[in-house]
Amino acid sequence: MSRRPTKHGNFLEEFRPGEVFRHRRGKTLTEGLFAIFTDFSFTTNPLSKNVRYARAYGFDGLVAPPGLVMNMVFSQSVEDVSENGRANLEYIDMRFGVPVQVGDTIEAESLVLGVKASSRERDRGVVHVQTTGRNQDGRIVLTYQRKVQVWKGDLDAPVHEGEVPARDVAVSLELPPYEPGRGYRELAHLTSADTYYEDFHVGDVFEHSRGRVVTTDHVMLTGMLDNTSQVHCNQWMIDQQPDRFLGGQLIVYGGIPFYLCLGLSSPDVADNALGDLRYATGRHTAPVFAGDTVFATSEVRGLRDLSGRPDLGVLDTVLRGHKFARKGDEAEKVEIFYLEREIAVKRRSHYA
Amino acid sequence: MSRRPTKHGNFLEEFRPGEVFRHRRGKTLTEGLFAIFTDFSFTTNPLSKNVRYARAYGFDGLVAPPGLVMNMVFSQSVEDVSENGRANLEYIDMRFGVPVQVGDTIEAESLVLGVKASSRERDRGVVHVQTTGRNQDGRIVLTYQRKVQVWKGDLDAPVHEGEVPARDVAVSLELPPYEPGRGYRELAHLTSADTYYEDFHVGDVFEHSRGRVVTTDHVMLTGMLDNTSQVHCNQWMIDQQPDRFLGGQLIVYGGIPFYLCLGLSSPDVADNALGDLRYATGRHTAPVFAGDTVFATSEVRGLRDLSGRPDLGVLDTVLRGHKFARKGDEAEKVEIFYLEREIAVKRRSHYA
Amino acid sequence: MSRRPTKHGNFLEEFRPGEVFRHRRGKTLTEGLFAIFTDFSFTTNPLSKNVRYARAYGFDGLVAPPGLVMNMVFSQSVEDVSENGRANLEYIDMRFGVPVQVGDTIEAESLVLGVKASSRERDRGVVHVQTTGRNQDGRIVLTYQRKVQVWKGDLDAPVHEGEVPARDVAVSLELPPYEPGRGYRELAHLTSADTYYEDFHVGDVFEHSRGRVVTTDHVMLTGMLDNTSQVHCNQWMIDQQPDRFLGGQLIVYGGIPFYLCLGLSSPDVADNALGDLRYATGRHTAPVFAGDTVFATSEVRGLRDLSGRPDLGVLDTVLRGHKFARKGDEAEKVEIFYLEREIAVKRRSHYA
Repeated sequence: MSRRPTKHGNFLEEFRPGEVFRHRRGKTLTEGLFAIFTDFSFTTNPLSKNVRYARAYGFDGLVAPPGLVMNMVFSQSVEDVSENGRANLEYIDMRFGVPVQVGDTIEAESLVLGVKASSRERDRGVVHVQTTGRNQDGRIVLTYQRKVQVWKGDLDAPVHEGEVPARDVAVSLELPPYEPGRGYRELAHLTSADTYYEDFHVGDVFEHSRGRVVTTDHVMLTGMLDNTSQVHCNQWMIDQQPDRFLGGQLIVYGGIPFYLCLGLSSPDVADNALGDLRYATGRHTAPVFAGDTVFATSEVRGLRDLSGRPDLGVLDTVLRGHKFARKGDEAEKVEIFYLEREIAVKRRSHYA
Repeated sequence: MSRRPTKHGNFLEEFRPGEVFRHRRGKTLTEGLFAIFTDFSFTTNPLSKNVRYARAYGFDGLVAPPGLVMNMVFSQSVEDVSENGRANLEYIDMRFGVPVQVGDTIEAESLVLGVKASSRERDRGVVHVQTTGRNQDGRIVLTYQRKVQVWKGDLDAPVHEGEVPARDVAVSLELPPYEPGRGYRELAHLTSADTYYEDFHVGDVFEHSRGRVVTTDHVMLTGMLDNTSQVHCNQWMIDQQPDRFLGGQLIVYGGIPFYLCLGLSSPDVADNALGDLRYATGRHTAPVFAGDTVFATSEVRGLRDLSGRPDLGVLDTVLRGHKFARKGDEAEKVEIFYLEREIAVKRRSHYA
Repeated sequence: MSRRPTKHGNFLEEFRPGEVFRHRRGKTLTEGLFAIFTDFSFTTNPLSKNVRYARAYGFDGLVAPPGLVMNMVFSQSVEDVSENGRANLEYIDMRFGVPVQVGDTIEAESLVLGVKASSRERDRGVVHVQTTGRNQDGRIVLTYQRKVQVWKGDLDAPVHEGEVPARDVAVSLELPPYEPGRGYRELAHLTSADTYYEDFHVGDVFEHSRGRVVTTDHVMLTGMLDNTSQVHCNQWMIDQQPDRFLGGQLIVYGGIPFYLCLGLSSPDVADNALGDLRYATGRHTAPVFAGDTVFATSEVRGLRDLSGRPDLGVLDTVLRGHKFARKGDEAEKVEIFYLEREIAVKRRSHYA
């Protein structure tokens, strides 16, 4: 008998700047994945709920919310990039391209932009990647950079430190054209009357009223994305070395609070959106565990036209997620998520 | 910065008799929602399991069980009507129309029939609505009245008390015609041999043998329906004021035990049904919490012909749900649900 | 009022050797059932993930992994055969036929091969059945024998002991033909580069690196299969007589660790498989409960050609599942599953 190595993702010393991973599997968006992921997030945008509305707006069928597109692409990169990650540090310049619809197959690849050992802890370091997802026609649906803290597998192995420049991936949100004859106004009752572009002002702050507890269902949700990172699902591993892992318990995969914050904000700022354009930067500022109730707030920082689309305007917002932690008799608000988010929102003048 | 109001449903003082809500979003019945909701309920009717059987009976595809139709329509009304509900009091005259199949899009509206402040507690009152759901062709799939106890938002705000008459919504179950050439008998082994109309007698009582525990999966199931009521999913809110909420913990959304009781009864009384016709009245008599095991019983109160359909007969039944609670060393049976239910059941003479 | 008997499955004294059950319901494989069941298992084979890959290999759409085929057929037999089972003892000669794809409807039947009362415990005995599942075209998708320990309903009832010979069910895995023009190599990056037939050697042992905790989601997963066995979902029943049930708590339905072990092994031994051929024997060697983390190992016992398919080779493996149990301060490894498994794996010479 001979023991064979088994698949377990890469450790810090295995990454090389300039290396490209064509991620395995790919993922077809079934109605099963769509329904569970879209609905758990509390998104209210009817593009993802009501096929009659989606078709009236020029889509072929139900449209994946931005959080689902992000999760489908991100999770494909986990096995190669972050299965042995300790913490996801930052999302950078995440831009959306062609919308993703039920039935689409998404495949992803990542370019290693940088590798750096920690100067203080010799068991870890930072990997910087640029990840791009494409649909079955080869068209880009999402591209972004991220930085992730990754464990070393062998403390004595040399780390291939270095940096390479990012690729210039030209992509921006592609939407069906505005066509006055489509009868948008007949469906205007399906969205809120007060969330058109004209309703927002710089400085507006929305404390979204709904919260949602994350239960152990996070294990199933994460598995549905083929996200193999063990800190989300391997209870035994955590129990052996609780000190090694944040919080000493299964940590909820970051894509879940990411998506949930987008969903909780949806009725107030994205109910009349046609899509998210770009996330300039984003980060998880504290971990989430089963039992936590997640809340979100949005702040409008800018309002601007969208080139070539007089029917739409852009909301520049900051989306924050938080939970509460007990501190003796007090409840302490803990920020868990920060995202600079640009949303393409319908103008009342054209749609209602 | 200016704080903006956020979506949170209506409070008692915001309702006006005669007001009509065209509920937002709508909902397309994907295979994801269908599979999870239908299967969790333990329904055994092959119309919702086996597309070969459903097509042989003249449907285009899998048929949504009555409990799923009820949940799809009801949940759309939550944001406007009962997001701030304390307890759902009664369902009245719930009638089914055109069957709902996978791929259908359902939209709903509610007319406010009555508003009444509580005479004893100044923080709540009762809202009475008539809700109707339609499919993408504008055909009615369900209509019913319900009464719900709703919190006031501002204790000092005046309540717009009053009543308006209900609309006359003419609707009854529409089924594909009986066609002797369809070869129903070749599929007769797919249902129980002893649950045809001829097998029932007035006075029959069925203590359905199966039970099913409700786990924290109720949070996900409720979210999948876009039901935004916070008492089902906002753990933090409950923890802040446990005295204010029934049981001091997350309460399971009533549509779940409603549907589960229908499913648990299915093998004994609805395995050979083609549909439910009407629920004259229904109510939740005690709350359900995660960890409770739900059971059901059915009692046959009447048997009658169905006009124009000699192949079918109507079972007038009472469906009751119960759970058990510990009382010291004893187990106490607690009724949780009561429904007067009329079922259209196949006659053996025509189908087996 | 008259109390009517209710559906509850068969007890030992109700089985007769030679009896055939045509199981009720049947089951259409929706995208909902497919997505949840396939993804929870951590399978990595893109035939079940990526419709672009599945079509390139000659399938019409996403292909059900062997564990899903097994679960769909097995669960249909539960109501008749093992709803009152105490423990599933053995799977014998499980062979796969036509692949199952999304949209297929599977129906199953079982022949009772043997009935035997326990010589030591008068409340139970063993039932031996041969179960076969067919698709909507009448073609066999799976056939196998199993032995299950079943409770008696009435301790004094006579047991119809005896045996009948098994039917000769001729079935073997049917795969789309190898066609050099299909461009398999262009998709080779979607699977691991080191899991082709040529990469394996007799004696190879893989300790699959990933583990997955089973949460209370097992109740929902089991319900989605229409598996009505009460030991998986009726918490109240267990609480009344904890001594009667293995472990004194809800026991996870065996199909879940069965499927999960297949999935956990997938990246190392089945990522480049086109299907599983046969399980000569299999058994659950210890129960699994919510909270257990499941792991798996594979051992290669033989390598051989597959008749008529020079593009494929057969891996004869043993798949074992295990979990860990605390014993004071020590962790004890507990084997939970054993399966002799034959896998049809692509040859690098033909595909990469």
